[in-house]
Formats: sequence, C-alpha cells, structure tokens
Amino acid sequence: MTSLKSSEIKNKSTILGIDPGTNIMGYGIIEAEPNKYKLIAAGVIKLDKIEDAHQKLKKIYQRTEHLINEFNIQEVSIEAPFYGKNAQSMLKLGRAQGVAIAAAMVKNKTVTEYSPRKIKQSLTGNGNASKEQVAAMVLRLLKLTEKPVYLDATDALAVAICHAFQYNQTTGNASKNKHSNWATFLKHNPERLK
Amino acid sequence: MTSLKSSEIKNKSTILGIDPGTNIMGYGIIEAEPNKYKLIAAGVIKLDKIEDAHQKLKKIYQRTEHLINEFNIQEVSIEAPFYGKNAQSMLKLGRAQGVAIAAAMVKNKTVTEYSPRKIKQSLTGNGNASKEQVAAMVLRLLKLTEKPVYLDATDALAVAICHAFQYNQTTGNASKNKHSNWATFLKHNPERLK
Repeated sequence: MTSLKSSEIKNKSTILGIDPGTNIMGYGIIEAEPNKYKLIAAGVIKLDKIEDAHQKLKKIYQRTEHLINEFNIQEVSIEAPFYGKNAQSMLKLGRAQGVAIAAAMVKNKTVTEYSPRKIKQSLTGNGNASKEQVAAMVLRLLKLTEKPVYLDATDALAVAICHAFQYNQTTGNASKNKHSNWATFLKHNPERLK
Repeated sequence: MTSLKSSEIKNKSTILGIDPGTNIMGYGIIEAEPNKYKLIAAGVIKLDKIEDAHQKLKKIYQRTEHLINEFNIQEVSIEAPFYGKNAQSMLKLGRAQGVAIAAAMVKNKTVTEYSPRKIKQSLTGNGNASKEQVAAMVLRLLKLTEKPVYLDATDALAVAICHAFQYNQTTGNASKNKHSNWATFLKHNPERLK
C-alpha cells in the first residue's frame, strides 16, 4: 500500500516480484534502471509437498526474508488479486500474501501491490491479455530467449517489471503517466522492439 | 494445524491465545496445569489508527514475536473463523491470521487453530453461547473478579483456555474426551464451581 515518493527514487533498484499462492510461490528479481531491466534471479518456492499449512507459512516467511537478504532487495512488489468468489480460498490466499508482505515489512522494505489486471495492462496495454502474451513481454523486456521453467516465476517477473514501470513514471518525466503501460512505453521507445 | 503429541505434553505450559483482526488483535496469556489456569497477561494490540495496511501486518508480526519472547510462551492457539460471507474481508482476515501464525512458527512454536464455535462449545458446553456467557466462564476459570477492559482480550483468553482443555485431554486420562468441554469438566470437577 506504500506509494513511491519522489525522495525515494534512485536510478537503479533491485526489485523482488512475488506471486504468492498456497501451493507454489513464484519470485522474480530484476535490476531496474530507467528503460533498462535485467534479470537477476527467478524461481518458485514449492509448498505443495508440505502437508502442514502452518509450515507452509513459515517457509514463505523465511524464504522471502532470505531472498531480500541474499539479493540486497530494495523494493518488493506483489501480485495480489483483491477479489475472488470463494471466501475459503481467499482466506488461504490472504494468509500467504500477508506472510510475504510481513517478511518484507519487517526488513523495512516498501511493498507495493498490483492486481493481475493492472500487471497485464501495464505490460501489454491490455488488462485482459493472456498469460502467454504477458510471458512474451517479460522475455522481450529482459532479453531472454527462453521462458523460465515455471510459469509462476514468469508471473513474478511480470509484477517486478510492472513495479519498475511505475517507478520510471516518477523519475522526472514531463508526463507522469508516460510509461503507464507497455504500449505507451513502446511508442516512446520504438528501438526496444528491435 | 499441529496436533499435540504425547511426547510434547508437559505438566505446566504457558499458552498464548490470539484473536486476530484487522483493527484490533486480542491476546491472552495463561499458565495451564491440569485443572488449574492462571492469568499471566491479557490485552489488545490496536491497529485501527495505523492507516497503512502493510504497517499493520508488520506490527502484528513484531508484537506476536515480542509476546512469545517476553512471556516465554510454549504454545500458541488462535481463534480462526474458517467461513465468512465476504471474500474481501476474508482476504484481510487471512492476512492478519497468517502473519500471527508465521510469527509463532518462525519461533518454532506449535500453533493450534480453533473455530469460534469450538471455543464456545469447549468453555460453555454450548457452541452458540453468547459472548457474555463465554466471558463469564473465562472470569470464573481464571478466578478473576473483573472483566478485562477489552472484549477482544477476553476472547483471546478463551482460546488459550480452550487449548488448555484439549491439552488436559491428552494427559493420560482414561477417557480421552473427558474434558472436551466445560460442562463435562464441571461434571468431573464440581468443586470448581464453589
């Protein structure tokens, strides 16, 4: 819920993106400079083989904390669906989200949440884009030739990139919303498609 | 989700009961021996004046961790409604619950969840008992003459006592469910009403 303030903006930032779930948690780490994004690490934390629901939460906490320490993370962004049909599954999802957020907060990192729609909109210009379209944009932006093995890791990279886009918006551009999505970003940076 | 194993049973245990919420978190700490319950501490952690939802989660984590350290807590019990109508409020509640659980798990404490109905059933013999009936039982069991100022603290003490009752069940009684609720407990311990 923390919004970026201009005083917090740096030219280079290491961003951890998290896609939390109850069975698998994706993470993606990028180094972001204005209009430049570099893959640092991506992967998943497997929770499906842990039977005890409380042990899963412990693992989410400890692994998030470990990633922040290991990669000297400055900012954390998280994919957070706010609405769902099933109250029971929302409770479980809330637990996983809350624990990842708390781990970052205890390490004094800002955490910014993005809805799945916002992430898709930001990367592709279309809030209803398919997972494949989002994944293709992630590959292109990070100059990767192969998809990460796990789709959840791609989703986590997408939320990290989405955060970097918001971040770039506030680095003194004339138009605050210049790069509010990938479509307008491309319009202003056609060379990125070459 | 961790059930008590016979190897873990001790004669005396300091139990932290938590009633987590998004605006206020109640806590109650009791020292439990078979058929003997002593109030150690009770209170609330106020979250309603913290605007940032992520700061609230940080506070829940740090205060839970602090209580566990300060009072040398052995076991943690938590009031956890599993069902609710509103998916959005369940997501928020799940975050608060998850963070309190993770704080205990990281400190290597077992955490046991009880539904509101189970707590009422356990203390009063009636799963639909009123808050006042539960509060009256808490006062009687802890030999208190005055209610704690905050009702959430009473609820947290109730979940700690509920956990102590389960605990007593496994201390070698002939009948495993001898003290599964307050009504049967009283039947076997009529002197506790004097």
